Order: sequence, then structure tokens, then C-alpha cells
Amino acid sequence: MDEFEIIRQYFDRESADENVLVGIGDDGAVTRPSAGRDLVTVIDTIVSGVHFPSDLSPADIGYRAVAVNLSDMAAMAATPRWMTLALTLNRAEPSWLEGFAQGLFSAADEYDVILIGGDTTRGNDVVVTVQLTGEVDAGAMLLRSGASASDSIYVTGTIGDAMAGLSVLQSGTPQDDDSIYLVNRFARPKARVCAARNIAHFASAAIDLSDGLFTDIGKLLMASGVSGRIELNRIPLSPQLRRTMATDDALRAALGGGDDYELCFTTAATEDVVYKVSRQSGVAMTCIGVVESGAGLRCTLDGKQFDYHDEGYLHFR
Amino acid sequence: MDEFEIIRQYFDRESADENVLVGIGDDGAVTRPSAGRDLVTVIDTIVSGVHFPSDLSPADIGYRAVAVNLSDMAAMAATPRWMTLALTLNRAEPSWLEGFAQGLFSAADEYDVILIGGDTTRGNDVVVTVQLTGEVDAGAMLLRSGASASDSIYVTGTIGDAMAGLSVLQSGTPQDDDSIYLVNRFARPKARVCAARNIAHFASAAIDLSDGLFTDIGKLLMASGVSGRIELNRIPLSPQLRRTMATDDALRAALGGGDDYELCFTTAATEDVVYKVSRQSGVAMTCIGVVESGAGLRCTLDGKQFDYHDEGYLHFR
Repeated sequence: MDEFEIIRQYFDRESADENVLVGIGDDGAVTRPSAGRDLVTVIDTIVSGVHFPSDLSPADIGYRAVAVNLSDMAAMAATPRWMTLALTLNRAEPSWLEGFAQGLFSAADEYDVILIGGDTTRGNDVVVTVQLTGEVDAGAMLLRSGASASDSIYVTGTIGDAMAGLSVLQSGTPQDDDSIYLVNRFARPKARVCAARNIAHFASAAIDLSDGLFTDIGKLLMASGVSGRIELNRIPLSPQLRRTMATDDALRAALGGGDDYELCFTTAATEDVVYKVSRQSGVAMTCIGVVESGAGLRCTLDGKQFDYHDEGYLHFR
Repeated sequence: MDEFEIIRQYFDRESADENVLVGIGDDGAVTRPSAGRDLVTVIDTIVSGVHFPSDLSPADIGYRAVAVNLSDMAAMAATPRWMTLALTLNRAEPSWLEGFAQGLFSAADEYDVILIGGDTTRGNDVVVTVQLTGEVDAGAMLLRSGASASDSIYVTGTIGDAMAGLSVLQSGTPQDDDSIYLVNRFARPKARVCAARNIAHFASAAIDLSDGLFTDIGKLLMASGVSGRIELNRIPLSPQLRRTMATDDALRAALGGGDDYELCFTTAATEDVVYKVSRQSGVAMTCIGVVESGAGLRCTLDGKQFDYHDEGYLHFR
């Protein structure tokens, strides 16, 4: 099977999007952006053995490659529209490709995203780069840099599950319901695209949680030129994580683990306002701290200062 | 040096483009498309050892990664505007990164393209994926599918140099002027962006020459539902290629070699019209054949049928 057969057989699907004037098959794709909206562009690569265990199912690899990009799009409060795929593979195994394409389109369909083009090449590693283009009302993007002192710090969903799921995966096949839940949180992260659009009108800043809560909140605070304080006992932990790990370990997974793809946002809105939007979005939104002036991120545990040091996941260290 | 330091030090540059609202540093980039224009999106990956010898200079790798995408953009007659970079590396060597960034921005600056975002990851291979977004007047893109019987088939520049240059590279350091010229044609291809815009109003179809002249013309003809005939003696060969190879080998390099990143286009315009545009564009445009009804691509040599079979470069074969 050569690269053109791969594209034809697994990736070239009909699209009903009338704003895709030219999709897969020419030198480039042509799309018609909406008048008066800005474009948001994100790109994320996942590499076998680095971002996921090499025995992760091809369908999960495909799903995850799209989901991590959707999460970046959510963090900008944008609506994802079109994606391209650069896929590097060692061999072209039909069963692998079929699973991968199924997972990829499963994520794409869930968020109404069209695959408009790509490139398939040979290499030693499995390297999957997905690039997503989305739209946002002109000037209405949600940045990392808008947080102000006295804003509250919120997170969506529960934190730490993905790291626990990855540990389960690395130690064998998940057996019980809790393990399966946690693995799924790693393999099939749910990008908070809809919730992000709902919070956009009152949030002052947002970031998605890919490198660990502590690191990512730190990035948001630094971009905003402020400091912050979070209370570790307020970090939302899932029952599944609590049953799998001691609280200390669960908090460590939440603070340093990464891969959660939940949103962290800051807002001056009252808890009532956030609660209503949380209900509308079908996603929990939990206040875990407050923005302060100065620089840095401090943690408290039961109100007492707690020294935590972690720089999250960094490539090339 | 971690990934954030790499981005800060080598890739995060000021941009004067007022349509880049958010560049490198947030979860995504925000750009403002021009009213009434369509977007063109292309993505291309180059892998060390597959698309280029592993000892190609980092500056050439950076230049080439952008140029191959610019060439796709040219084939759509679009104006490139913004790019993202997904870079997978084994190690973060400052000297390598400095050279790579210098080559990358050299190509980007030459074509007025802004780097708006990216992703840096670790892996075994050097894998460089560049994604380019460009613009074209609404509905004015140049496709592969518009060729009609009796159109003439043209190519820009000279063909076959890149393959000869790659052979030189693979057999050691180029010594003489001809070898250096040919290697440069491989390492630093000139995308025909300006020429493409000039031919767009009279060309019926276009494709860029990446996989070999025979294969790529075949794709254009197939997309247009027509056949064609080219006269091998008309294929423009550079003096440097002629001096380096026997004519037979040079023609074989042109037909099957690939990596030329010249344009092939079809048109019903007279030779006079094309000649004028060729002069304006500063690029030779040579008629090498004619579009006919039916299917397939036939070759003649001095007017006599010449059987040539080649499927160009295919991954996974």
C-alpha cells in the first residue's frame, strides 16, 4: 500500500461543509473563512514512546492526536473547524491505519471538524502532527494574559486522572472499572470546547492543562504578570482516582502529572455565575484559588503554606 | 535547554504583521484573514534519511522544510502568509538549532511569511512538519483539475537538477561549480510563488513538481480527466546538468527524479502570452507537450514514441 492508497482508503472522506472548497487531493486545501471572525491556529505533535506508550491502541492514538489540539482550541475559546494531519509511520499496516483513522474521525466528528489535507511519510517513529484551524469572533479570543489580582482560579472537571491512567497502562492491561476509567481519561481526553465558549464572556484568562496543574497555572500567571495561591484540598479529584491512590499521591498526580486537558481559567465573576455556566456546560467548574499581585504560584494545604516544586513535563531535559 | 528556551531563543521573533493578533506563546495563534479572500492550507513533512541525507546542513533543512510548502502554495496560485512548525528532534544542540532557525527564517523572510506557532518534541528522527496558511481571491485558486484537450503543457525553470544534486551530496562534498549549483537546487529550492500568481489568470491547471515530472504530470492529467503527450527533447535541462550527466541520464533525472519544486501548468494561451509572463516573472517557462483526450501520459523522443515507466517516489513501497 503506497501513500496515495493510504490517503484514499483511510482518510479521504466526503464532507458536507460548504466552506471547504477544496479538500484532500490537490496541492493544498481551500476553505472560506467566516466574515468578521478571526482565525485561530494550533499545532501539536505526539510521538510514540514519548507522549504515549508504544502499545496504546491505534484508535486511541488517533483520538488523542486530535483531542490535544482541540484542547488548545478550547483554551482560546475558539470553534474548531478544519484540520490537517502529518503522519509519519514505519510501516503501513492496514489494521493499524484502520484503527487510527477510526479514532481520528471519532474525535473529529464529535467536534464537527473536517480533515482537509495532510501528508504521509515514512520514518522510524510514529509521529502524529495535527494542525487545527478554528474561528472566534473578531478580537474575542481568550488569552493566558488577562488575569488580574483578586480574580478566582477555576479548573474544569477533575485533575490527575490522566497521569494515574498512564501508570495503569504502563503496568499492564487495566482490569477493574476504576482503572479502565482512568486509562480512558488518558487515552480519550475530552476537550472542553463547549464549556470554553460558555465561560469566554466572563473569564479573564485561560490555559489548557497539558503539562501539569502547577506548571500550567504558573504559565497563565506569568503571562498575566501576576501571582496566585491555590488550596490543594480544593483540587477536584475523581472518586476513581481517590480509590486508586492515597490522597497525597493523587494530589501529586494532579499537580505534576499533566495530560488532563481540562481548562484552568480565571474570573472576577461570582461563584453563582460560574455555577450556572457549569450546569449549562455539563462540566464541573471548581474554584481552587485566587490571583494575587506579584509573581509565582504558592500552594496551601488546609490553609497552611505547602512547599511544592515541580516544573512539569519538559522535552529535552 | 528545554523546549520553552528553544522556542524563546531560536523561534520567537517580533513580527510587524498587524494581522497576526497573537503569535507564539499562547495556546494558539490568532490571525485576521483578509475580507473576501479564501484560505489555502498546506502541510508537508520532511524526515531525516528519507527526504534529505542526515548530513544535510541544518540551515538547508530549515530552508527546505519551508520551501517545499511554499511550492504547494505556489501550485494553488496563493499568497503564503503564516506558518506553524512542528519540530521533532533527538537532541537539542544549540549549533544545530541556530543553523536550522537561520535557514527557516531565511526562506520565510524571502516570501514574507510569519512563524505564528509550533510545537517542539523529542523523538528518534529529525522530523520537520511545516504548515502554511495563505490567501487567494475568493474562488481564484489554481487546481490540478482544469486542463482541457489541446491545452499546452508548460514547466518553469529547469528539471532534473535536484536529483543530480542529491546524487552529488550522497557521494561526498561538492567540489566544482556545477556540483555546487546542483546541490543548491536540491537543498534550497526556489518556490515559484510569484510566477504562479502571474500565470493564474490564463493557466487551466497546475501542480508543483515534487515526485518527478512524469508522475506529477500524470496526477494533473488524471485530476483533469484527460491524457497528454510530452516531447522529451523539449524538457529544459540546465547547462550544469548537461555538463554533469549524459543526456539520457539527465532526462531520466528529470522524468523520475523529483524534488525540483518547479511548476507544471497547462494553458490555452499562445506562446507569446506565456513568454511575456515568463519575462515578467524572471523564470523560464517552456512548452513541453500537449493535453489530449483520453487517459495516460505518453512520451516522444524526437517525435517518435518512447516507452517510459516510472511511478515516482512513493512512501511505503
